[in-house]
Amino acid sequence: MADAPVRALILAGGSGTRLWPRSTDERPKPFLALTGGESLLRETYRRAAALVGAGNVFVSGRSSHAPLLAAELREVPESRLVLEPMRRNTAPAIALSALAASEDVSDTVFAVLPSDQAVRDEPAFLAALRTAAEAARTHDAFVTLGIPPTRAETGFGYMEVEEKTGEPGISLKEKEERDGSIRRVVRFIEKPTPARAEEFLASGRFFWNAGIFVFRTSYLFEEMERVCPDVLKAARLAHAARKAGDRSSFSETFSSSPSVSIDVAVMEKARCVLTIPYACGWSDLGSWEAVFEFRGGAPGVNVLEGPAAAVNGSGNLVLAQGRPVRVVGLSDVFVVDSPDGLLVMRRGASEALRKSVEEGLSR
Amino acid sequence: MADAPVRALILAGGSGTRLWPRSTDERPKPFLALTGGESLLRETYRRAAALVGAGNVFVSGRSSHAPLLAAELREVPESRLVLEPMRRNTAPAIALSALAASEDVSDTVFAVLPSDQAVRDEPAFLAALRTAAEAARTHDAFVTLGIPPTRAETGFGYMEVEEKTGEPGISLKEKEERDGSIRRVVRFIEKPTPARAEEFLASGRFFWNAGIFVFRTSYLFEEMERVCPDVLKAARLAHAARKAGDRSSFSETFSSSPSVSIDVAVMEKARCVLTIPYACGWSDLGSWEAVFEFRGGAPGVNVLEGPAAAVNGSGNLVLAQGRPVRVVGLSDVFVVDSPDGLLVMRRGASEALRKSVEEGLSR
Repeated sequence: MADAPVRALILAGGSGTRLWPRSTDERPKPFLALTGGESLLRETYRRAAALVGAGNVFVSGRSSHAPLLAAELREVPESRLVLEPMRRNTAPAIALSALAASEDVSDTVFAVLPSDQAVRDEPAFLAALRTAAEAARTHDAFVTLGIPPTRAETGFGYMEVEEKTGEPGISLKEKEERDGSIRRVVRFIEKPTPARAEEFLASGRFFWNAGIFVFRTSYLFEEMERVCPDVLKAARLAHAARKAGDRSSFSETFSSSPSVSIDVAVMEKARCVLTIPYACGWSDLGSWEAVFEFRGGAPGVNVLEGPAAAVNGSGNLVLAQGRPVRVVGLSDVFVVDSPDGLLVMRRGASEALRKSVEEGLSR
Repeated sequence: MADAPVRALILAGGSGTRLWPRSTDERPKPFLALTGGESLLRETYRRAAALVGAGNVFVSGRSSHAPLLAAELREVPESRLVLEPMRRNTAPAIALSALAASEDVSDTVFAVLPSDQAVRDEPAFLAALRTAAEAARTHDAFVTLGIPPTRAETGFGYMEVEEKTGEPGISLKEKEERDGSIRRVVRFIEKPTPARAEEFLASGRFFWNAGIFVFRTSYLFEEMERVCPDVLKAARLAHAARKAGDRSSFSETFSSSPSVSIDVAVMEKARCVLTIPYACGWSDLGSWEAVFEFRGGAPGVNVLEGPAAAVNGSGNLVLAQGRPVRVVGLSDVFVVDSPDGLLVMRRGASEALRKSVEEGLSR
C-alpha cells in the first residue's frame, strides 16, 4: 500500500437553475468561467494535475458533453475520460471511475474533486488534500475536506465531528500533536433548518461537506460490497463492457444501477469517515450572490466583467459578454448577459430566479 | 389658392443619446418601433398619407440613411425623397423640400411632420391638422399645432399665444365662434427655467412647440426672402442641381447654406404664426421615461415587449429583442436590449445615461 499511486477524479457533471442564463443543460456550471479566469473545470483540472500529475487525472462526465469536455481538457485521453451514457447520480459514476483508475494497479489512493466549486487559496487547498491523501493511504477511511461554516447556510450538507478529547493515558495536546487536525466524522446532516444551522455555526463541531474526499479504491470497493453491492455490481459490468468497447452493453449495464449519491449510498454508512479542515476560502458558486461574493463584491463595491459600466451606483455584479452593458443609477443589482438570455436581478432574489426558470418564461 | 393641393413633408432626421442602446447614428429614433408597433417613421407616413394622400407625401432625410428609408417607405419614389448630403438643420431641409413639392403647381399647402414623435389619438390629430391646413390656405401664416403642457417640462420649446379678448364691436364669444380655437402666437420661448416652466403650465397661454406646422409654400418663400435670403438662395441652387442630377453641385450648393433651424431662421421672425391646440395625447419619446409613460407604464405597472418576464416587481419597462430577458425582484427599472448594447437603468436616470453615452463606455 505504501506504493499505491495517487490519482484524482474530477466530477464534471452538475447543473444549476440559479445560474441562469449562463448555466444551461448544454453548458452546465463546470464549463463556465465564473471566477473571471478559466472555466471551473479547467481550474479543477489544474489543481488535480498539481496534486497527482497530469497522467493520473481521470474525469467523469456525461456523454452528451463529450465535445465540450474534449475542448476544455485536451490533455486527458479518452481512456481516462469516463463518460456516463445517462445520469445516475454520483455513486455509480465514482464506482465506475474507480474501477477504471485502479485496473492497472493493485490499489490506488483516489481523490474525488467536484468541478463546480472555487477555492481561493490554492496552495492551502492542495496542502489539505495532500494531508488527506496521506491519511487515506494509512487508514481504512474516507477522508473528506471539511469547510468550517462561515454562515448559517441551510442549502448545504454538514458533517459533525467527534468532540476533541484526550484518550486514556494521552492528553488532548499529545493527541493533537499525533493526529494533526484530522477529526473523525460521526454524522452527516443534509440541509438543516435555519435554527439548527445557527447551532452548527456556533458549535465549531460541524463542517460543510464540499463533496471532496480521498480514499483507497480497495476500501471503496470493500465498503460498497457491504452497503450497496448492486451499485458496485452494475459498475463492474459496465466497466467490463467499456473495456470491451461494447457500447450497448455498457449503456445497459450502467443504466441498471440504482441512481444514488455517494453520500447516501456509501459515506453515511461507512465504518470510518475522517475530515481535514480547509478554511482558506471555498465557494460552491451556487448562485449569483455566491459568485459576486467570491469575486470580491460587497455593498458599495461593483464587480464588472467585459465591456461593462456601472454609473451612479454600487454593489452591482455586471457580467457582460460581447455587447456593451450600461447600468445607470442602480445599486445591488446583478446583470448577467449571455447569448441565451439576459438576467437582471435584485441581489438576494436567487430563490425567485430559480422558481422563474423552473416555471419557464411566462408572465 | 383655393385649388392649391395639400402636401406633407416628413422630417426623417433626429437622434438621441437618451435612447441608447436602441437609437444610434446608423439607426436613429425615427427608424425605431418605440410605441410597440411599427417604426415612428412608418407611423408618421401612415398619418401623412391619411391627411394628403400617398402621392402627396414628401420625405426629407439624410443620404446616409437612404437604404433604411427605402426599406421603410417603399411607397415613396425617389423624386419625393429629398436627401440631404450633410446635416444643415431644418431650415435648409424644409426650404429644399418645399421647392421640390411646389415645382409642378403655383402654390401648395404644406404640412411639416417630424417623425420622432408619437400621438395617441390619430383621428383627433388628423382633425387638428385639417383645421391647420384650412387656416394655412386662407391666411398668410405658419399654422402650428400647439400641445397644451401637461408638466413643467424644461426641455421643450414653448409658444405663447395672445390673450383671448373680444374685438371692437365683437364679443369674445362671437370671436371664438368665428375663429374656432385658432390663436395667434406672440412669442417663442426655448427651454425655460423650471420656475418659468411652472408659470407657463399654470397660465394656460403657453403651448409646447412640437415642430408640427402647416403653411403655403408661397408664404414660406416670401418670408424666407425677407428674413433669411441666404438659406433660400442656397436651397434654390441646390434644388436646380438636384433636378439636373448634378450631385457634386447639389452637395456644394446645399452645404453653402447656413445651418439653422426653421424656428430660429423663420418662425420667430414671421409676420404671422397661428396655433391650433391638439390635446389628445402626444409624446416626443425623448427618453425611456417618455416611452414608458406613452405605453401605459406607471408605478405598479410593467411594460413588457418581446420574450420578457418581470417576476416579483412592478413599474418596469422591459424591451426584449430575440433573447429572453428575466427581471427578478426589481421595481422601477428599465431594461432595453438590442444587438448593439444593453441598458439597465433606474427610472429617472436618463440624464446620467445621456452623460455616460456621450463620455463613452469608461469605468
